[in-house]
Amino acid sequence: MLVKTQVKYIQSLSQKKLRDEEGVFVAEGPKITEELLAAGNVDLVQLFAENNWIQKQAFLPQDAVQTVTSDELQRISFMQTPNQVLGIFRKPVFPPALLLRNKISLMLDTVQDPGNLGTIIRCADWFGIQTVICSRDSADVFNPKVVQSTMAGIARVHVVYEDLPEFLQKHADIPVYAATLNGTPLPQLKQVKEGILLIGNESKGIREELLEMSQHKVTIPRIGQAESLNAAVATGIILSHIV
Amino acid sequence: MLVKTQVKYIQSLSQKKLRDEEGVFVAEGPKITEELLAAGNVDLVQLFAENNWIQKQAFLPQDAVQTVTSDELQRISFMQTPNQVLGIFRKPVFPPALLLRNKISLMLDTVQDPGNLGTIIRCADWFGIQTVICSRDSADVFNPKVVQSTMAGIARVHVVYEDLPEFLQKHADIPVYAATLNGTPLPQLKQVKEGILLIGNESKGIREELLEMSQHKVTIPRIGQAESLNAAVATGIILSHIV
Repeated sequence: MLVKTQVKYIQSLSQKKLRDEEGVFVAEGPKITEELLAAGNVDLVQLFAENNWIQKQAFLPQDAVQTVTSDELQRISFMQTPNQVLGIFRKPVFPPALLLRNKISLMLDTVQDPGNLGTIIRCADWFGIQTVICSRDSADVFNPKVVQSTMAGIARVHVVYEDLPEFLQKHADIPVYAATLNGTPLPQLKQVKEGILLIGNESKGIREELLEMSQHKVTIPRIGQAESLNAAVATGIILSHIV
Repeated sequence: MLVKTQVKYIQSLSQKKLRDEEGVFVAEGPKITEELLAAGNVDLVQLFAENNWIQKQAFLPQDAVQTVTSDELQRISFMQTPNQVLGIFRKPVFPPALLLRNKISLMLDTVQDPGNLGTIIRCADWFGIQTVICSRDSADVFNPKVVQSTMAGIARVHVVYEDLPEFLQKHADIPVYAATLNGTPLPQLKQVKEGILLIGNESKGIREELLEMSQHKVTIPRIGQAESLNAAVATGIILSHIV
């Protein structure tokens, strides 16, 4: 049986402040939970799961698992349609140094929509990008909505929050490729071996200060009439060309 | 002043059945509203707007515009943060015949997430795709959430709902390119002049029956460990290569 303090505690994890204090985050549904349990760098704190899901697992740390009914799951879930299991996990642990040499990394300037951020991380995960550097006013990667849309990419992609101009100054030897509406057409760009792909805010794009610090500007050729592309779609298209 | 019947009527348009009966849909915010007003094939039924937005418009059909306060807008809006204006429009009118010859069209098998569908249409609009053929169990393109994420692409991209196997049988001379996880790597595919790009459901992919009717299978090469890509991101990547 769930007790009131448990329900309250889990609900409190919708707030970034509480997640930061506790160093934990919530993930839901069989797929992402199973992937996180299998990931080496994410520790389980507690699982709340329906019996039918528990029965299907070959191994579960018994003392961290609590059986719940679907009604109970509904009470603690952040999803509209809860899906068998909700896990509280410790934030993933990554090596402290960011490896930017001989790699492509991503930089996000104020990407504020949780779904967009999660989809971008999932996409980074697909293309083997290891590091995503976000401005401090971007969405929080441990927001439940972001976690869900990363599809467990959160365990593999190292997301950090930085003062972006300061960060670029410190790493001035790494070339920056800014995604803009008036740069070099993407097909003219050669494969990139090392660099930072910079993606801007959903409506305002990349702030001027960062554009000025970018050595390259790159544009996805437009054939139709849409004014812009979704940030996650643009990220995927550029990565698929340069990786 | 808004009257109760107006509020009730607008709220009822969240239901597909009512939208179909009335032949209308709702769009919100200055950007998409202004684009729809400028589009030739979308008729305005009624606008509810705050005064500051109305003042900025060079031309508005006075008898179709009602000034509202931001509190009133809040009451009729489908958005969490209403944005100055809400418009009721007649569904766009397109030429009745679907033009598939010498073009690339999109086909969506059970794309059910409204955000995904909208983002795919926006992406189709960017790449000049004129026709999107959806399975009947896909999300409704006039769902307010879909409308918002198309960013007015809804006025330019012709979206139809069909029985997909039947449709493909009828157009058996148009080659079908199915996006799968085990097809020809995308970079090996030449530019496509004519064809239908087939995208599957978010979790189940493309149903077997449709796969069997596809002449080509195409795959976005994976470098990292993500299990799959978001449907809209995958659509964007493939379109950017073949268009």
